[in-house]
Amino acid sequence: MANPDPTRDDLPVLGLDADDTLWENEAWFHKVEGRFRDLMEPWADGATTDAALLATERANISRHGYGVKGFVLSMITTAVELSDGRVEGRRIGDIVIWGHELIDHPIQLLDGVTDALDHLGATHRLLVITKGDLNDQMGKVARSGLADRFWRVEVLAEKNEASYAAALDRHGVDPLAFVMVGNSVKSDVLPVIGIGGRAIHVPHTTTWALEEPDPVAAASAEFPVADRLADVAGLLAAWPTA
Amino acid sequence: MANPDPTRDDLPVLGLDADDTLWENEAWFHKVEGRFRDLMEPWADGATTDAALLATERANISRHGYGVKGFVLSMITTAVELSDGRVEGRRIGDIVIWGHELIDHPIQLLDGVTDALDHLGATHRLLVITKGDLNDQMGKVARSGLADRFWRVEVLAEKNEASYAAALDRHGVDPLAFVMVGNSVKSDVLPVIGIGGRAIHVPHTTTWALEEPDPVAAASAEFPVADRLADVAGLLAAWPTA
Repeated sequence: MANPDPTRDDLPVLGLDADDTLWENEAWFHKVEGRFRDLMEPWADGATTDAALLATERANISRHGYGVKGFVLSMITTAVELSDGRVEGRRIGDIVIWGHELIDHPIQLLDGVTDALDHLGATHRLLVITKGDLNDQMGKVARSGLADRFWRVEVLAEKNEASYAAALDRHGVDPLAFVMVGNSVKSDVLPVIGIGGRAIHVPHTTTWALEEPDPVAAASAEFPVADRLADVAGLLAAWPTA
Repeated sequence: MANPDPTRDDLPVLGLDADDTLWENEAWFHKVEGRFRDLMEPWADGATTDAALLATERANISRHGYGVKGFVLSMITTAVELSDGRVEGRRIGDIVIWGHELIDHPIQLLDGVTDALDHLGATHRLLVITKGDLNDQMGKVARSGLADRFWRVEVLAEKNEASYAAALDRHGVDPLAFVMVGNSVKSDVLPVIGIGGRAIHVPHTTTWALEEPDPVAAASAEFPVADRLADVAGLLAAWPTA
């Protein structure tokens, strides 16, 4: 994944989240959650199904990590529990197939992302820092058609201060000179500020419940917000030493 | 994961596989495969179940990657298919729980591994290169009690020439000065030799069918074989420029 152009070593490193920063992600999961509510209808109403699924995901997140496969396993566990074991095997086979669709779906870039990356890549080495399933995330980078624009791609099991610090150390990046861009205040903004870096929040339409930041921490942190990735280059140019 | 002792930068880097090189792994999967044969008994004999599961894993490996979660999803798909959708939901719930047991099980180090790592770590920076599920593999490293002995830990989605080359580049390691140690000829030996490095094979008792190397490639490659990790230090000492 290393960009072979040695002259670029002088450029500062800009971190970029991927899911819901570069391409649609959460929306695909929402679609499947709708199907799952329908499937559970004989045993539970939609709100009950949603709450049970979220509780299962929360209970399993440290075991499953982030990504489609853990989501599928949580749906299956929820289906078995809500139906008291009566859900049919073939219905569970359907859930697995939804997961395959989620893994295989074409990448839908957010508006203006390709042009924005071309701008940002002229002044920065672009380091994608994403979390979730390694195989799935690397596949999405490959299918996105954007891989050539990235200096490197780093997939983390979790995005917190320790994992950012270790990743930046691995890539020889000084946190004090590092800027991260992403849609999640919890994962892309607060931990980077926590290790002395800077971050730009680019909100997306939907935020998964497990991505909601601690409201106190979010309120006390100061960071710029960009409506779209295309606005980040202007923010960086106006930001001293960025 | 970086070892903070700066004097160690002079030491050569030794690559180590983890599953079935440092600790038991395949044996846990075999145990679960036995339970799965029992579960499938109403619909298929053991040989049929084994063959169907392997075919499902093979068909899904590029989509699921390596690891427990993909294994569980493949068992579920196989159960639904072999039973023509009639397997009970609660039985599939059992399969998910087996997966949780696989993820949570205590790490059982192979004989002599801790002492062997202490020896090897005195002369080399130890770089674990494993493949599979990021969350699961990092959890195993943490639970192994060995993390302090490693210079760094790298989890790859796949172990092939391209992924080794990229990983060594990321860590600033010259392939020509690199030695990899592991139990899989396909994953730990042949691709490293293919990029100009060297490798030591430390066979383990069981090899998963998808880990069997191309027999022609394996026969034409030359590499030393150690019975146990404890024998690797002696091989390295006797190996010029290693």
